[in-house]
Amino acid sequence: MSTDTPIINASSQASTKRNAREVRAEAQAYLDNLKGHPFPNSEKLYLTGSRDDIRVGMREIHLTPSVIGGDKDNPITRDNESIPVYDTAGPYSDPVSDIDVRQGLSPLRQQWILERADTEELDGASSHFTQQRLADGGFDHLRFEHLPKPRRAKPGNNVSQLHYARAGIVTPEMEYVAIRENLGRERVRNEILKQAHPGQSFGANLPEAITPEFVREEIARGRAIIPANINHPEAEPMIIGRNFLVKVNANIGNSSVSSSIEEEVEKLVWSCRWGADTVMDLSTGRHIHETREWIIRNSPVPIGTVPIYQALEKVNGIAEDLTWEVFRDTLIEQAEQGVDYFTIHAGVLLRYVPMTAERVTGIVSRGGSIMAKWCLYHHKENFLYEHFDEICQICAQYDVSLSLGDGMRPGAIVDANDRAQFAELETLGELTKVAWQYDVQTIIEGPGHVPMHLVKINMEKQLEDCMEAPFYTLGPQITDVAPGYDHFTSGIGAAMIGWYGCAMLCYVTPKEHLGLPDKQDVKQGLIAYKIAAHAADVAKGHPGAQIRDNALSLARFEFRWDDQFNLSLDPETAKAYHDATLPQESAKVAHFCSMCGPKFCSMKITQEVRDYAKANPECLIEVNDVTDGTALDADAGMAQKAQEFRDSGAELYSEVQSEKA
Amino acid sequence: MSTDTPIINASSQASTKRNAREVRAEAQAYLDNLKGHPFPNSEKLYLTGSRDDIRVGMREIHLTPSVIGGDKDNPITRDNESIPVYDTAGPYSDPVSDIDVRQGLSPLRQQWILERADTEELDGASSHFTQQRLADGGFDHLRFEHLPKPRRAKPGNNVSQLHYARAGIVTPEMEYVAIRENLGRERVRNEILKQAHPGQSFGANLPEAITPEFVREEIARGRAIIPANINHPEAEPMIIGRNFLVKVNANIGNSSVSSSIEEEVEKLVWSCRWGADTVMDLSTGRHIHETREWIIRNSPVPIGTVPIYQALEKVNGIAEDLTWEVFRDTLIEQAEQGVDYFTIHAGVLLRYVPMTAERVTGIVSRGGSIMAKWCLYHHKENFLYEHFDEICQICAQYDVSLSLGDGMRPGAIVDANDRAQFAELETLGELTKVAWQYDVQTIIEGPGHVPMHLVKINMEKQLEDCMEAPFYTLGPQITDVAPGYDHFTSGIGAAMIGWYGCAMLCYVTPKEHLGLPDKQDVKQGLIAYKIAAHAADVAKGHPGAQIRDNALSLARFEFRWDDQFNLSLDPETAKAYHDATLPQESAKVAHFCSMCGPKFCSMKITQEVRDYAKANPECLIEVNDVTDGTALDADAGMAQKAQEFRDSGAELYSEVQSEKA
Repeated sequence: MSTDTPIINASSQASTKRNAREVRAEAQAYLDNLKGHPFPNSEKLYLTGSRDDIRVGMREIHLTPSVIGGDKDNPITRDNESIPVYDTAGPYSDPVSDIDVRQGLSPLRQQWILERADTEELDGASSHFTQQRLADGGFDHLRFEHLPKPRRAKPGNNVSQLHYARAGIVTPEMEYVAIRENLGRERVRNEILKQAHPGQSFGANLPEAITPEFVREEIARGRAIIPANINHPEAEPMIIGRNFLVKVNANIGNSSVSSSIEEEVEKLVWSCRWGADTVMDLSTGRHIHETREWIIRNSPVPIGTVPIYQALEKVNGIAEDLTWEVFRDTLIEQAEQGVDYFTIHAGVLLRYVPMTAERVTGIVSRGGSIMAKWCLYHHKENFLYEHFDEICQICAQYDVSLSLGDGMRPGAIVDANDRAQFAELETLGELTKVAWQYDVQTIIEGPGHVPMHLVKINMEKQLEDCMEAPFYTLGPQITDVAPGYDHFTSGIGAAMIGWYGCAMLCYVTPKEHLGLPDKQDVKQGLIAYKIAAHAADVAKGHPGAQIRDNALSLARFEFRWDDQFNLSLDPETAKAYHDATLPQESAKVAHFCSMCGPKFCSMKITQEVRDYAKANPECLIEVNDVTDGTALDADAGMAQKAQEFRDSGAELYSEVQSEKA
Repeated sequence: MSTDTPIINASSQASTKRNAREVRAEAQAYLDNLKGHPFPNSEKLYLTGSRDDIRVGMREIHLTPSVIGGDKDNPITRDNESIPVYDTAGPYSDPVSDIDVRQGLSPLRQQWILERADTEELDGASSHFTQQRLADGGFDHLRFEHLPKPRRAKPGNNVSQLHYARAGIVTPEMEYVAIRENLGRERVRNEILKQAHPGQSFGANLPEAITPEFVREEIARGRAIIPANINHPEAEPMIIGRNFLVKVNANIGNSSVSSSIEEEVEKLVWSCRWGADTVMDLSTGRHIHETREWIIRNSPVPIGTVPIYQALEKVNGIAEDLTWEVFRDTLIEQAEQGVDYFTIHAGVLLRYVPMTAERVTGIVSRGGSIMAKWCLYHHKENFLYEHFDEICQICAQYDVSLSLGDGMRPGAIVDANDRAQFAELETLGELTKVAWQYDVQTIIEGPGHVPMHLVKINMEKQLEDCMEAPFYTLGPQITDVAPGYDHFTSGIGAAMIGWYGCAMLCYVTPKEHLGLPDKQDVKQGLIAYKIAAHAADVAKGHPGAQIRDNALSLARFEFRWDDQFNLSLDPETAKAYHDATLPQESAKVAHFCSMCGPKFCSMKITQEVRDYAKANPECLIEVNDVTDGTALDADAGMAQKAQEFRDSGAELYSEVQSEKA
């Protein structure tokens, strides 16, 4: 998914002002210190599948005990069970991991790929560009040293997960994602935490437990994909589909102004840490090939690219000079590096281009405008469309998934849902059929800028036109009046379309439309989108999604402050905000907070209500009578009840007051 | 609307560490420098109504000219018309205003109130508490010096806007809001800007132009209110109702730890500046009465309070010691100070309290828990419910609007939409009928914590149970997993419920559930909620709402950077983000941005597409043919068209490239 704002390294321009030695030293220090570190009070948990090498990493958040009685000096406590949550950080959140970015991550899928015996190791890269590049000693200092040799399907073989699924094969990748999607929720025993609202899923199918066979069926049906290039065995399998957890993509990539590759690796690690399920490398500039080497070798999540960006670099930025041959070589180059999915703007047809002429903001997709320019210049049909079969043949040899780009997406809410946009979507549906003929896993990219009331029709039309192939949207942003806050304007639309059935949400950062996001912007974009994705899971009724909400709410009710921080999507910020008012360590266990203080606390009063209701079960019966339409006799037994209340909770409350008074 | 986190001054604790003289000096300096200042490149615009003293303040954003031809040195430009937008800042955004917080704002409604001749000036305050307070010299140094004498309805009169509306009277207040709601959109002539999607309003009635008579009808019907206490003539009339622009409330208020009154006035000004349509003063502590004096006299927006907070202070924080007499005196005290609306938790009935016992977070509303505690302690019905008729009688004498509080709102998504919540809502509907019997303007408060798929039923049930009395919700927050980002988790729900028909959204800041919001948190909360409210207006199809979106999108397409900043809800942040990458002044007029650079720009290519389409109208006809099902002859005339394109746009594009190469 390309965005209106390809992400480029914000600090790169500043770095060019420092001398090369400084930059190198800094990068060196960064690399030396890179190691896995867990989130606060969290531990890496591995759930093992049917074979020992299916080890699914999760994060387990340990909680503090609840105080259930006693007094301040001798509290009686009850332990709280740990909460397992999905973890995208891979080895980077595991302190026992042996991380060396010069070596790359451990190839956890290597054995599975080899066992299938349908691929072969090549002597070297098949792409002409890669061959030239390797022969050019000028890039040696930038190169990832321990490059593995590329693999490719043996002649006549198709190595896509879709191909296996259709053949009835449950791969280790499928079993891995089944375990992963279950969120370890079978470990949770507290019934309070397991409460969940029945969701509204708009036709999604969310079984109580995800089985490997269910995963296989969904992939076979084209309703889900596991982006898993055979040349990226380091990636932990994950699944994108409407019947699974909603996923989030983060865009990174260096700029045409040279930035250090180390900085890109840092951004990759940072993205995984803050929840990116996939990362797109939108690099431009001279070292795009080498940057990608480093990113892929160190990425525990699938990597996507927009190959037309690099192809454009190869023709010196002149769109009309693009050719199928240059593009084809780029696909092979990137497929052999290990890119897991390609954004291809094959739906930008010549006849659709003039449909954008009356728009307020025309074509805003970079890929879309490159192809539009090419089509108009040559007055020929889009070569990506013309050569789509060959693109699929290449993808099938490496299991590169296709992300059919929406080059015609609206760039302003006024342009939403117009003829150009929907005409292209219909073409993407046709292309999906073609890709499926080649057993190529396919997802569909979507908008963009769409007001709230026009979001749902996008999802409905996509499901219909593209036969439930997963939808992958950029937002949508639901108003244009808040540049500086477009992670939020688009996060609203993202939450909604995720609920309606969108499978993956491409994040937007606060700098969208304005400038180059820095590390903090990347984090803000990711948190906003993790909120959107999670809210969508809860609204859809994904089993187990609400456990984390419930655990946090219960911690809130019981004044377990550290647990509230640690269960938050951003523990650091939650803790910092709390500590801005009450920094003392004692406040973390205080049964009050800064908002109301110890004298008055609604949570405390609620506990008294509860104690009272337990001690007086007849009051609950009265309530039932009332809701049955029977009036409560408000006089009977009132004096008695009031006395009981004074004897119990009310006294406790007064005591707390006097402590402070 | 009380929140889970009443807002208290974050800096107050720090200030107590400095000596009083320093604090005083700082406040003095602040007050001396307070003056109206406009937003960047904006001007205060006053639209005059049927009489000269109906002058409705708006903000007019001036735009830079568009470059439509010529070259770099001699550009041909076309002026862009200014965009009028709603302005909540009152005199604070008008540089010609004479602002002196010791004098208070000019009472723009005074004459209208006097002309109605149905009120009388009292010799002094009727409230016992106020009388005692004024007699206590110990508070003289805190007191607002130029306090006006309070007014009250003459015996037998009802001075509410609802009363006038039902009598068929169109008040100046009604005419004022009619002009205000039209957003000055009759001034906009550019057809591109006036484009708008038909909205989806779920039964709202949004006429093309709001007339004073329409306003009167909506108020008479109880579907809208103008909170306008006769003792707060400084407030600019505004309207809350589903058939008008969605409004936003901000909470401010000092803490029990003394903070300077000047700081509260600053927060008030800050809130109005960033878009608060009303402000609730949730102060607690010793100087709550005097703080309110200053806030009301300096507020251009209606002020709401939760009187039970102050009543609780008067009984030393002991909920069970509350009495109707103390509460009644508090209502009169605040009504005579000029509070425009009261949150009253009269729906927390004794029989509903035990319904919360099984909740995960019980009762989280402060007002709700105070009343729950009182009810249980005495085992008597809520005295606010029992005395509701008298409350209405008091309100009618001053035109204080009622905001019926949802003391039973859920504090966790797991508790959403339960029996306690909806039972209370039904009671609020009954109380609305009572209030309407007294011609008291009424709105209904709503949740809270609700997952996305359960938001809509809240709106539908409220409309039905409360006969379309305006709904006023706190969010709702749609997931509990992101403390630190609850302005966002709740902003999503707020946008949705605003679209569904909610009339006013009570903001939440990033510190919600964690600590005391500071000035920046207040701003973040407001921007998030202005986005939600505006997105709701656009989705509902409010006429004119989309003009600002379109103006900003057009500025974006034309690379008018300053216009993009100035049209943003937060011009300062938008500009700062842009300048972080391209600080040079020349970049503000550059026809490219930092994202793609000058070599490749999708916006630029779009302009070429447009030029091409204009020069080749037959291509648009071809497109029409295609959408009619006729295939495009892809060969005919292709060479010709390609040549035309090369002769026009393509050359322009190459030129830009060579400038940089």
